[in-house]
Amino acid sequence: MPTFKLTLAYDGTGLVGWQRQAAGSSVQGLLEDALQQLAGEHVTVIGAGRTDAGVHALGQAASFALDRAIGPDTLVRALNARLPDTVRVLAAEEAPAAFHARFGAQAKTYRYRMWHGDVISPFEQRYAWHVKGALDVDQMDVAARVIEGQHDFAAFQASGGAAHTTERRVSRSRITLAGRVTGSGRVIVYEVSGDGFLRHMVRNVVGTLVEIGLGRHSADWIGEVLESRDRTRAGPTAPPGGLFLVRVAYDVSACG
Amino acid sequence: MPTFKLTLAYDGTGLVGWQRQAAGSSVQGLLEDALQQLAGEHVTVIGAGRTDAGVHALGQAASFALDRAIGPDTLVRALNARLPDTVRVLAAEEAPAAFHARFGAQAKTYRYRMWHGDVISPFEQRYAWHVKGALDVDQMDVAARVIEGQHDFAAFQASGGAAHTTERRVSRSRITLAGRVTGSGRVIVYEVSGDGFLRHMVRNVVGTLVEIGLGRHSADWIGEVLESRDRTRAGPTAPPGGLFLVRVAYDVSACG
Repeated sequence: MPTFKLTLAYDGTGLVGWQRQAAGSSVQGLLEDALQQLAGEHVTVIGAGRTDAGVHALGQAASFALDRAIGPDTLVRALNARLPDTVRVLAAEEAPAAFHARFGAQAKTYRYRMWHGDVISPFEQRYAWHVKGALDVDQMDVAARVIEGQHDFAAFQASGGAAHTTERRVSRSRITLAGRVTGSGRVIVYEVSGDGFLRHMVRNVVGTLVEIGLGRHSADWIGEVLESRDRTRAGPTAPPGGLFLVRVAYDVSACG
Repeated sequence: MPTFKLTLAYDGTGLVGWQRQAAGSSVQGLLEDALQQLAGEHVTVIGAGRTDAGVHALGQAASFALDRAIGPDTLVRALNARLPDTVRVLAAEEAPAAFHARFGAQAKTYRYRMWHGDVISPFEQRYAWHVKGALDVDQMDVAARVIEGQHDFAAFQASGGAAHTTERRVSRSRITLAGRVTGSGRVIVYEVSGDGFLRHMVRNVVGTLVEIGLGRHSADWIGEVLESRDRTRAGPTAPPGGLFLVRVAYDVSACG
């Protein structure tokens, strides 16, 4: 009964997110349906990050056990043949029996893209948050760095979030400019890595950084929000389309 | 009766191209319909490049005369409010009465994107040609440079193309790598600038460059194809989704 690790990319537009729901297409549901066709039985797929509706992935990781001998390259081709174009298996590898994509994950990196300009490019509508008005990107980066380190991130958790601890370690949190893409605007990228993220944490941090960029608060404010552990103090939740799960890191021994 | 110049970006997926057709959404048709709503009369819009179905634009130019005084910023907002999200007016400016987006264009730049790898990223499906197999990118660039200069490009014109002369001047024709986007592949970019392009010319050149990259012909072959002026000698027509009209240049005096 081999265990597999998959690396996946998906365009989250039109998906209800990673997790299987009563209605709508989920990445987990699409993968489980494809594996059921392949294996002739239900296979439970575990994702490293349970991305929300509309959130994208460049390097999501998933694991499952299959009661069938199949080569990793054959598995990639067979799954992609059964999945919609918007969900692609980039790679498959055999992993130790105990490998668990979610509990074994040691670090994750998320990227959040913003479009800053009067008119949003038609190529960015689904992949960036359209932010208008004068924006102090340097102050956004100063604020982004404040959350680096071990902190209680309760202030940035979705209301109703049910994590048993809200303590997380953020190893890197930065704002960069991705250059002028067209004459009408620019892409601002927030990238954050850490050992784990609470529900909506990245999007709530981004909403807070944009408040600072727009000059509604100083860069110090994010530290006050963090220390308050009070969800009502943070900025708004940034929309899902700008968010990408970039990669998930595992201990070498965990992924074979 | 002020004349305006527009700069436009559009995602050509699902569009029948620039030119109004009997059925389907065209950029010209969408713009003319939006202007009709605005001006209360039919307005003919002229595009610099008549992009085909599925071809995109980052900086298309268009011109028209309007029997109504309206500020350029108001025009941008009013048109974008009436256009679908996939077509955006990036800028508008008043131009001299004689300004004609097509006849006045002095140079155009097109970009063609290819995805090279086993599995195409879900974010590249509509915006790149998926090329598989060993590819000699250096030889593709050697071949790309051969067409720089003044030549008769009849061999690269669509069959049935009706240009009164097939002579064109290509000022720059190059292949570059756009770096590793994900672990599963890379983006190869062909960029070409010139005073004008025949129908399907860029896509036929790309099809020819890929034949060379795949080792089916040497880099010299493109020169033989060019000299033959025979459409049947060139490579296949590359699919439309990889092609972007990047910008159109005008003499300063022509655009006010």
